[in-house]
Formats: sequence, C-alpha cells, structure tokens
Amino acid sequence: MPRYRMTIEYDGAPFSGWQRQAGQPSVQAAIEDAVSRLGQSEPTLFGAGRTDAGVHALGQVAHIDLEKTWLPEKLMAAINAQLRPDPVSVFDIEEVDDSFHARFSASARHYEYRIRDSRTPPALDRDRVWWVPYRLDDTAMHTAAQELTGHHDFTTFRSSQCQSKSPVKTLDRLDVCREGRDVIVRASARSFLHNQVRSLVGTLKLAGEGKRSAGDVRNALHAADRSACGPVAPPQGLYLVSVDYSDEH
Amino acid sequence: MPRYRMTIEYDGAPFSGWQRQAGQPSVQAAIEDAVSRLGQSEPTLFGAGRTDAGVHALGQVAHIDLEKTWLPEKLMAAINAQLRPDPVSVFDIEEVDDSFHARFSASARHYEYRIRDSRTPPALDRDRVWWVPYRLDDTAMHTAAQELTGHHDFTTFRSSQCQSKSPVKTLDRLDVCREGRDVIVRASARSFLHNQVRSLVGTLKLAGEGKRSAGDVRNALHAADRSACGPVAPPQGLYLVSVDYSDEH
Repeated sequence: MPRYRMTIEYDGAPFSGWQRQAGQPSVQAAIEDAVSRLGQSEPTLFGAGRTDAGVHALGQVAHIDLEKTWLPEKLMAAINAQLRPDPVSVFDIEEVDDSFHARFSASARHYEYRIRDSRTPPALDRDRVWWVPYRLDDTAMHTAAQELTGHHDFTTFRSSQCQSKSPVKTLDRLDVCREGRDVIVRASARSFLHNQVRSLVGTLKLAGEGKRSAGDVRNALHAADRSACGPVAPPQGLYLVSVDYSDEH
Repeated sequence: MPRYRMTIEYDGAPFSGWQRQAGQPSVQAAIEDAVSRLGQSEPTLFGAGRTDAGVHALGQVAHIDLEKTWLPEKLMAAINAQLRPDPVSVFDIEEVDDSFHARFSASARHYEYRIRDSRTPPALDRDRVWWVPYRLDDTAMHTAAQELTGHHDFTTFRSSQCQSKSPVKTLDRLDVCREGRDVIVRASARSFLHNQVRSLVGTLKLAGEGKRSAGDVRNALHAADRSACGPVAPPQGLYLVSVDYSDEH
C-alpha cells in the first residue's frame, strides 16, 4: 500500500483537537472522513502532534496508507474538495517510503504562541491569540525563557494527563519577541510533553508581569512539581508551525 | 450633549453589515446596544463607512452623542466589556466638538482587499480573504488599476442599489502588490460608491488572469455601464483600514 505524507493547516477553533474522539469533531476525523469519501475504506491518519482543542496548525504533518496509488497533486485536490467547508487544508502531499512515520520519524517540532498584550480585546484575532489586557515585558520573558532551554525534567510544565513515559526532554529553543501588536513565544524540541508549551507560556507571562524573576522560573523548573507552574495559557494562541524530519525522510 | 468619536475593529463574518437592520445582527446595533446597557437611552451611532455583510474593519470611525460626560478611557473599557462576546472592539475614543461628523467630515477612506491566490484553500484565513485557486499576475493588475485612478464617472463599478446622488468620484489610489501569500489591493478616496471597491477588484482579477488588458479596463470605465464590470469580488476579502479627517477635526 502506498504511503502519503501530507502537510496540513487548520483553524483549531471548531475542533475538539487533532485526535479522533467519538461524537466530537476532530481534525483527524475530518481528514479521514474526506479520504473515505474518495473510496478508501477505514483510512487511518497518523499525525506528528496531537494538538488540543482550539490549538491551530500552520504545518501539521501526517501520513496515511492508501489502497490505490494517486498522483500527489490529484490526491491533494480531491481531499481538499472533500474537506470543505471545514477550516482544514492540505497544502503539500508526497508519496513516501513505508519507513516514514509522521510521529516517530520527526526530529523536531516547532510551535509558536501569540499573546496580544493590548488594552483593547482583539476582534479579528479573537480565536487566534491570548488576550492579556496590559503590557508585558517581553525582554524579561525572553531572559526567563533562557532558564528553561536544555535537557531537563519538565514535570513542572507537564499536564497531569500526560502519557509520556519520561518527563525528561530537551528544549532546544524558547525565544520571546515582540512582533507588531503581539508578543510571540517560539518553542522548538524533538518532542514535547502534553501541555508543555502552554505551561511554559503561562509561567513566562508571570515573568512578563514582573511577578516572577528569571531565578523564580529556574527554581520552578528545578522543583519538578506541577504546583510550581503558572496558570496554563489558553489554547487559542498556540500554533504548530512545522515538523522536521531527518534527511533520510 | 458631549460627542465622542471612536475607532473600531471588527470581524464582519457574523454580521449583516454595519448598518442596523430589523432582526439582523449588525455592528451598529451591537455597539448601540452596548452603549444602552451603560444607561444611555436610544443612542445613535454614525459610522464613516456603511460596510456590507462580511466586510471587516481595522479602523472604522463613528461618533455618538451621550447624555453623560465620560472619561474616554472609562467609556472605552465599559463599551468593550459590554460588547463581549461579539468580535467588535473599540480601540480609541475621544471627546470631539459637535461640528465633527464621522461620515460627513471624513476627508479620505482607505480600504484594503486581500486575495489568496494559491492552489490550496485558506484554513485559518477562510473568512478573511478571497480564495482564487491559481496564480494571478499582480503586475498586470497594478498596471490596469492605474487606468482607474483619478476623477471619473464610476457607473461601471457601482451597485444598482447605490444611493449616491452622483456616480462621479475621485479615486486617489488603487495599488496592487504581493505580500506573503496574498495579492493586496489598496484603494483610497474621499468617498466610494456602493460596492465600488469590490467591483474594481472583480475587474482587476480578470486583468490578473490575462482576460482583460489595461486598455479593456479603461474601456470598461469609459463605457459607464454596469454590464462592463467583472463579477463583484466577495465581501470577506475587504477591510476598511482607516478614515482621515481634516486637521480641524
């Protein structure tokens, strides 16, 4: 069976998340159902990142095995046509070797988190940013963020529902900068724990308010205790930007 | 009665347009109702531009007379609080002289129209751009656009429902350029006819497809005949960006 790798953009607002759940609209189900309507029985899609309800993707990657061989261009157009009116689009598709696995072959995942720190609530970007109605100190946030990069036990920044075997991960990048009206947090790692980015952002926001110093943030990490984490940032500011694979894939 | 001028951002998608209409959600009604809840009886809001259903604003301007004098900051916060969860935000407010009229004192209106000319449909920007599933020639569009600037009878580019006394207007700017994934059309004039920007964009799109030359576009203008207009562009790509007032205001 030929295997196809696809790159996907979606608006997370109307979905209960990436993963198929009985009776809930999910991105995985939307795409699997679109592929079923092309004549493939019981297609199963494997995604690189299982984004939560309300979380968006600019470049989620997934793979699927099909009975039939398709020209990638035609398959993409057919899936996109079936996906309407759901806010999900496949913008790249290619046939890959069956050693490729969207989740297990990934060498890095890149996320972006957008905070609108303005007095007035966002209108056009209502479901696209975390609105914080006062100015944050993005420099203090960036300084605190540097305490969190590297190889650590991230228990503090892990959801109690996280199914990962180990809380130890390597956070390669955690940068904070101001772009236009938003404070942007960019996070990169081979893999993340459940709710890790939103937990990190929630704690960095406290640093941006002057409520936690960079030292406090370092201590929170070393506590390896969930109760040391700031409030978890809401989902609508989070974007899965892209997923890297080794040259082999 | 003190008069207040406010600058407003909104997502046009859930509204039947700016103007209040019985039984329909409108931006004007959303703001008037918010102001009523602050204790003002029968407030009337006057907007600079009566945007159609689905059209967005980054900087609509309106004025309103109130019985009570407010600190502008407090009035803005109170209106924004009452506006939740509608995707409408007031981001600037100031007390003005009663010679100020949002509609009649305006010296220029600036609109932007976004076209996503990509093979794949937009997901996150689904209600924010006009999706054209093939590449447009933005240079040809810009060249054709230059035939349309200046003082002309714009009957060709005017809705049959337009209530303006005269079809003669001065179009100060009509520029087309590519920005990121989008082709952007920017239009500026003291005032516009009903559907003028969307009619101009519909015709420029034909130029971008190579179906109309700059000469054809000039001839369409000079025909002063609605049937010479291309299909009107859909509302979701249009943004009222800003409104200018003379120094006096």
